[in-house]
Amino acid sequence: MQSTMQDVPLTVTRILAHGARIHGSARVTTWTGEGEPERRTFAEIGTRATRLAHALRALGVAEGEPVGTLMWNNGDHVEAYLAIPSMGAVLHTLNLRLPPEQLVWIVRHAADRVVIVNGSLLPLLAPLLPHLDSVEHVIVSGPGDRSVLEGVKPRVHLYEELIAGQPGDHYPWPEIDERQAAALCYTSGTTGEPKGVVYSHRSVYLHAMEVNAAASFGLTPAETCLPVVPMFHVNAWGLPHAAFMAGTSLLMPDRFLQPAPLAEMIEKERPTVSAGVPTIWQGLLGELDARPRDMSSLRTVISGGSACPPALMKAFEERHGLTLVQAWGMTETSPLGSVAFPPAGLDAEEAWPYRVTQGRMPASVEARLIGPGGQELPWDGESAGELEVRGPWIAGAYHGGADGEPYRPEDKFSPDGWLRTGDVGTITPDGFLNLTDRAKDVIKSGGEWISSVELENHLMAHPEIAEAAVVAVPDEKWGERPLAAVVLRDGAAVDYEGLRAFLGERVARWQLPERWALLQSVPKTSVGKFDKKVLRKQYADGELIVTTLG
Amino acid sequence: MQSTMQDVPLTVTRILAHGARIHGSARVTTWTGEGEPERRTFAEIGTRATRLAHALRALGVAEGEPVGTLMWNNGDHVEAYLAIPSMGAVLHTLNLRLPPEQLVWIVRHAADRVVIVNGSLLPLLAPLLPHLDSVEHVIVSGPGDRSVLEGVKPRVHLYEELIAGQPGDHYPWPEIDERQAAALCYTSGTTGEPKGVVYSHRSVYLHAMEVNAAASFGLTPAETCLPVVPMFHVNAWGLPHAAFMAGTSLLMPDRFLQPAPLAEMIEKERPTVSAGVPTIWQGLLGELDARPRDMSSLRTVISGGSACPPALMKAFEERHGLTLVQAWGMTETSPLGSVAFPPAGLDAEEAWPYRVTQGRMPASVEARLIGPGGQELPWDGESAGELEVRGPWIAGAYHGGADGEPYRPEDKFSPDGWLRTGDVGTITPDGFLNLTDRAKDVIKSGGEWISSVELENHLMAHPEIAEAAVVAVPDEKWGERPLAAVVLRDGAAVDYEGLRAFLGERVARWQLPERWALLQSVPKTSVGKFDKKVLRKQYADGELIVTTLG
Repeated sequence: MQSTMQDVPLTVTRILAHGARIHGSARVTTWTGEGEPERRTFAEIGTRATRLAHALRALGVAEGEPVGTLMWNNGDHVEAYLAIPSMGAVLHTLNLRLPPEQLVWIVRHAADRVVIVNGSLLPLLAPLLPHLDSVEHVIVSGPGDRSVLEGVKPRVHLYEELIAGQPGDHYPWPEIDERQAAALCYTSGTTGEPKGVVYSHRSVYLHAMEVNAAASFGLTPAETCLPVVPMFHVNAWGLPHAAFMAGTSLLMPDRFLQPAPLAEMIEKERPTVSAGVPTIWQGLLGELDARPRDMSSLRTVISGGSACPPALMKAFEERHGLTLVQAWGMTETSPLGSVAFPPAGLDAEEAWPYRVTQGRMPASVEARLIGPGGQELPWDGESAGELEVRGPWIAGAYHGGADGEPYRPEDKFSPDGWLRTGDVGTITPDGFLNLTDRAKDVIKSGGEWISSVELENHLMAHPEIAEAAVVAVPDEKWGERPLAAVVLRDGAAVDYEGLRAFLGERVARWQLPERWALLQSVPKTSVGKFDKKVLRKQYADGELIVTTLG
Repeated sequence: MQSTMQDVPLTVTRILAHGARIHGSARVTTWTGEGEPERRTFAEIGTRATRLAHALRALGVAEGEPVGTLMWNNGDHVEAYLAIPSMGAVLHTLNLRLPPEQLVWIVRHAADRVVIVNGSLLPLLAPLLPHLDSVEHVIVSGPGDRSVLEGVKPRVHLYEELIAGQPGDHYPWPEIDERQAAALCYTSGTTGEPKGVVYSHRSVYLHAMEVNAAASFGLTPAETCLPVVPMFHVNAWGLPHAAFMAGTSLLMPDRFLQPAPLAEMIEKERPTVSAGVPTIWQGLLGELDARPRDMSSLRTVISGGSACPPALMKAFEERHGLTLVQAWGMTETSPLGSVAFPPAGLDAEEAWPYRVTQGRMPASVEARLIGPGGQELPWDGESAGELEVRGPWIAGAYHGGADGEPYRPEDKFSPDGWLRTGDVGTITPDGFLNLTDRAKDVIKSGGEWISSVELENHLMAHPEIAEAAVVAVPDEKWGERPLAAVVLRDGAAVDYEGLRAFLGERVARWQLPERWALLQSVPKTSVGKFDKKVLRKQYADGELIVTTLG
């Protein structure tokens, strides 16, 4: 029996047309620091996106070609988000926080011919241009000092001038296969070269539908969403697409991401939902503690990108009545992988253990845990394995290997095509994901995994320990064993046996470290995380004084 | 540039696996009239659906084969909903309200070999079996008098016995192409033969995602949904699939659809959302007025299937604090076509004119209005045309034409593949759909359309008019013109000129009927709607006494 359904593709073009027509009066409001914010209706965004498509076509942008954007969250960027994929080209968001050499590497790898850049970011782009051979056109959006562009090779255009003469009522949008590329985003992995993830129209559309699910972020036409997460980080978690689909107004912070202006724009523009990384909320908390503001419009604040400290969630709730909801994802997962709403019917105290997990996967994200031996592990809340995921908005490859074709590194994709997330944790019988480690930091000891983070957390709860880092070191018998490196509080004396006994009351005996070392401080990365690579190297080079317990 | 996303199909199999595992503790509760309701967890439903798939395979059910269900809304039916498409077969829901000869026609047309039937419906099925040559197996679910099956040709099985011996932990679910058939539902059109609509896995999945959107029905794991709309009506509006996808518990009324048991089950089981046709809510209103009950658990009551009388919506709200939300759809639209949530920021009074419309389309449903001359009409809230729709869960054909292939009657599908809904109305600039007529009842006068329903509503607001029906009659000059047939209130005298003047204050002059007739009562269909076919025939046959005004 054949289905009698219409065969209609899921495309960004549809999202654009729908938002501009059915929700034409919804707004994109861009914060400008001083004075009135810039306000555009979805209908105006639709018209301007149409003009932009004509303008880009006039510059020779072809189907399948990437167009770079080096931009903050603002109205022009929303136009680029919708126009570029709709015309069959590929939106390539450039992460303005990357080191210059990585940005150069990425633009060269993608071979961007056209880059749209916010005027405020010209000081960042201009010095790179001599290294960006592929770039022929630079389109400057918004105010900025263009003198830095004098003498550069690419042609320089002003966004407003470029789109001004173009028709805004019609564009010959191509027929798009939903599996066509829509957007390109490189991971800013700490190791190795950046890896390009190419989202399809299908994946963007399905992901936006899931964002709008009541059980996910639940956007509606009655709401205003403030994406603090940058539009160059995994499509601002799909919020611009989801908002245009649902008719949800957007409040865009542009470059004003400091706690004070964030608090001010929330108080004045009254968004109902916001999303960003924990650092942003940590900053906002400090601001609100110092200068209380009316945050009552916010029903939900989504925190993702890294684990949200429970203390931060509690402080927001107790001191400011704000609900932080954790979500998990990564560039390779579009990013919505799981959201930590507690199960039904629990009171605040009972809900807490669920809210500090990474939450549950939606129907479109299939998960499994793979143990140290490659075997699939049960969902018992105890067996720890690497999380692998599968689904229509999950990456199955990276962009542009040696031959230009997508490539599938073995450490990133399983032979049957699932994404290896590199995250290690457990899943409860009712599907709550609890991530504890990055796979590279886990100690693989005799076919079992020992969580470095769990040992560290226990050690750091000891009254005499200021910091503790646990890393895997080679062991002849077990393959790997944990080395515990500790920093003592002022005045404390070294007592490894005591610490080991302390740990012994908290974890299984076979997990207890034999090797111990004393540090002045734990080496840290530029963003303040423990740099375990350095520690492992110090151990390998014999730079640590290690005490081995019997 | 190629997308690097995984290619994962959207299937009912995924919905089943997800609900049973991640939301295993959600429940399907079936009302049993007396005593405790029957309760099954999603995990149990998953196990039993797996057993059912094995049992059906043992009966020889093959991929692509329809399996009939003649069942109320209950746990067994949910198992059939999930098991049959997941095993690659096609769920064929049979409408137990159809006249027997139509049911026979439909089972023969689909060639169902296996039918699952509720024991309570055996008195309906048994007399039909001699006419159902294709049926080889009848599976009886739940209690019922099986003596009526004595001597029938098909083999009779008991559902519980059939699944009891089967494995519940695993089934070799086939790889499914998302465009494969998942479910079959025949329209019960008042004219012509029933037409089969075959939903695909893709359309069921996408539709369930949309049902779960916060801006649509917004199901979450914290909720319980009571689908009063039968599972044999357009998949109970997709609610069983959506609930399994979102982890929303289901309260199933089985055959207890009378106002008193509905009120009782709502009070006792406390669903948060319910959905059904206006007649159901009219009955419940009467019950609640007579015997008030605690309905406070219901956040939203969805009304669809036909226009919901505003008086009913107001009465529910004012007298019982219940919010009725109108939605529009049809068998051919899966059915979610539009939902009437008002725009943001309006107070109750301002929201009202939006709430009585059919509402706005989601992004996946594209709409256009086609005027009398075949031209596309503007969305100005005034230009009335036939609504045509397009989208991934909209039918583009019917099942099984003369050659067994899908067929596309011209009056149902436009040459470019859009569904002609047969509904006539307007769309406001912000996308609110306002349906006024069925296309067959509209008067096509000189290239313009006159709404029969609008004229009837105005006439019936006249103090001396009890009923009024307006139909198109042939006219040499204009093609068609309206004939107004009126029923007077007791004691009123005929005054066509006065009625025409009354109308003249309310509609454009060119819309005023010249032809008038007096009736004792308006002829009605079996469900109480005006039967305009009869009226047109009476006019054609010269049976009406018609007065023509100058």
